[in-house]
Amino acid sequence: MTVHISVNSEVLQRAQQQIQQDLKIALDAFFIPEPLKSAVNHAVMLGGKRVRPALAYATAELSEDHKNFAAVRRAAVAVELIHCYSLAHDDLPCMDNDLLRRGQPTCHVAYGEDTALLAGDILQSMAFEVLGSRLFDTQVTVDPSIVLKQMQILATSSSKMVCGQVLDLQAEGKKIDQEALENIHRNKTGALIQAAIMMSAVTVMDGVDAGIPKLREFGQVLGLAFQVQDDILDIVSDTETLGKTAGKDELVEKSTYPALLGLDAAKEYANKLHQQAISALDYFGDSASELKQISAFLLARKS
Amino acid sequence: MTVHISVNSEVLQRAQQQIQQDLKIALDAFFIPEPLKSAVNHAVMLGGKRVRPALAYATAELSEDHKNFAAVRRAAVAVELIHCYSLAHDDLPCMDNDLLRRGQPTCHVAYGEDTALLAGDILQSMAFEVLGSRLFDTQVTVDPSIVLKQMQILATSSSKMVCGQVLDLQAEGKKIDQEALENIHRNKTGALIQAAIMMSAVTVMDGVDAGIPKLREFGQVLGLAFQVQDDILDIVSDTETLGKTAGKDELVEKSTYPALLGLDAAKEYANKLHQQAISALDYFGDSASELKQISAFLLARKS
Repeated sequence: MTVHISVNSEVLQRAQQQIQQDLKIALDAFFIPEPLKSAVNHAVMLGGKRVRPALAYATAELSEDHKNFAAVRRAAVAVELIHCYSLAHDDLPCMDNDLLRRGQPTCHVAYGEDTALLAGDILQSMAFEVLGSRLFDTQVTVDPSIVLKQMQILATSSSKMVCGQVLDLQAEGKKIDQEALENIHRNKTGALIQAAIMMSAVTVMDGVDAGIPKLREFGQVLGLAFQVQDDILDIVSDTETLGKTAGKDELVEKSTYPALLGLDAAKEYANKLHQQAISALDYFGDSASELKQISAFLLARKS
Repeated sequence: MTVHISVNSEVLQRAQQQIQQDLKIALDAFFIPEPLKSAVNHAVMLGGKRVRPALAYATAELSEDHKNFAAVRRAAVAVELIHCYSLAHDDLPCMDNDLLRRGQPTCHVAYGEDTALLAGDILQSMAFEVLGSRLFDTQVTVDPSIVLKQMQILATSSSKMVCGQVLDLQAEGKKIDQEALENIHRNKTGALIQAAIMMSAVTVMDGVDAGIPKLREFGQVLGLAFQVQDDILDIVSDTETLGKTAGKDELVEKSTYPALLGLDAAKEYANKLHQQAISALDYFGDSASELKQISAFLLARKS
């Protein structure tokens, strides 16, 4: 089948506004001493695509019942805080030693290694604090069993992300096959992308809904497509467009899809994964249009 | 009032056996790739006093109803994993740059900085995974609202611990008063010690039990007493007995209770706090004997 969807980032832009506002509310709710407060703000508020929150919001659109939307907002904040913690730690000198992120000095360049380390540490615990909080609540109290499910998904994906990071470090300079590469990405990037979707899904859907496995498949395939596209952009884009150092993968002899398959076949593979992701959404009909738009945008992105 | 309790570490020894066994079960339940698995094991299994788990178990003894004990065991594991993560990160070169911990090479000395960083990171998420798991469960399923309370306490104390760490770094080389010093320790050490007690308390007691505020006070005062004693030991003990580098506080011009009050007055203060902690337990009568024993042991300890 062929999928025709116009690339429209309107959904993503709306999500970016929502998460930017919610992240600010969340950060302001915590007392954090300086210079940690500034470092945390630097790590969180600089922006980025906010793909994970956008996926959480778009997943909530699959249900007509919006009474638990406060819990979706908390999940979106929590998952983005975990993502930001991972970036702050990944950039550290003992890891990728990156100086530039989103066109700005990385957290340790701006605030020192010790503060950047602690900023990452507290962002992780803050994610769980937000999940368990009453932030954004109106009258409705969410069933504790739902929050517990959200917590389990977030904690598991956060652990998987770290495992993926280790697998990635281990593979540097080595020749690995596509299966090993996909295992890295399923953990390193895929787990948290899937978590954004599933944390929202368990909040707005009945746990036995037949759509749950479909969403799990969508999340898994989309996570992979996202990474293949990331690898392609590292080659075809430049540092200015990317907002982070381009061409870095080749420099550290990182295994990537273009290196493994060739650039054209990697592009083809990204397309194939995208179509597979969209197909997994067929079950939901029109209510999945936002998820489809985000997916299309991710494939077409330039940074 | 004067408190006479024989120093008996039998309670602590039993707790150490229990937590050692439970930590092993917990770590074995996770798939973690090497070398992260070894680094995590190194950070967790080397031992230590296991004060926090012991406090969780002893708090559970305040209730005669043991049906939720599996959740207390999970809380004990979770809080110890958080403690171990904090040690692995504190020891890093960009922080305290410590080479020795519990008489062994620190995590980054044994496994490299990148792996030690990631070991700390995954230990934090594993703590929340364990809390939300069914580990140690028999037939009884714990009410999700209890697990949610445990999670909130753990996440909040974990964040506070990081704030305390920042306040501590900020105070190095500066003259601070006792109030500022206590604020550092309430966050840095006290919060997690109190969390061990409160996570167990909300599991075995009714949330409106009049004992809850008493335990909160006990935890807060004990946490402070523990830190005052730590400061004293850093001066009067040697590296071999301590299992970590002695005399380090003075070297980095850290504010400590002995530095602020003088050694004798610091010892007197530790005694006074200990008595205050014990008094807070009066409400519970004989059922608090384990908590009292742990408190007495902590005051008399040499390392």
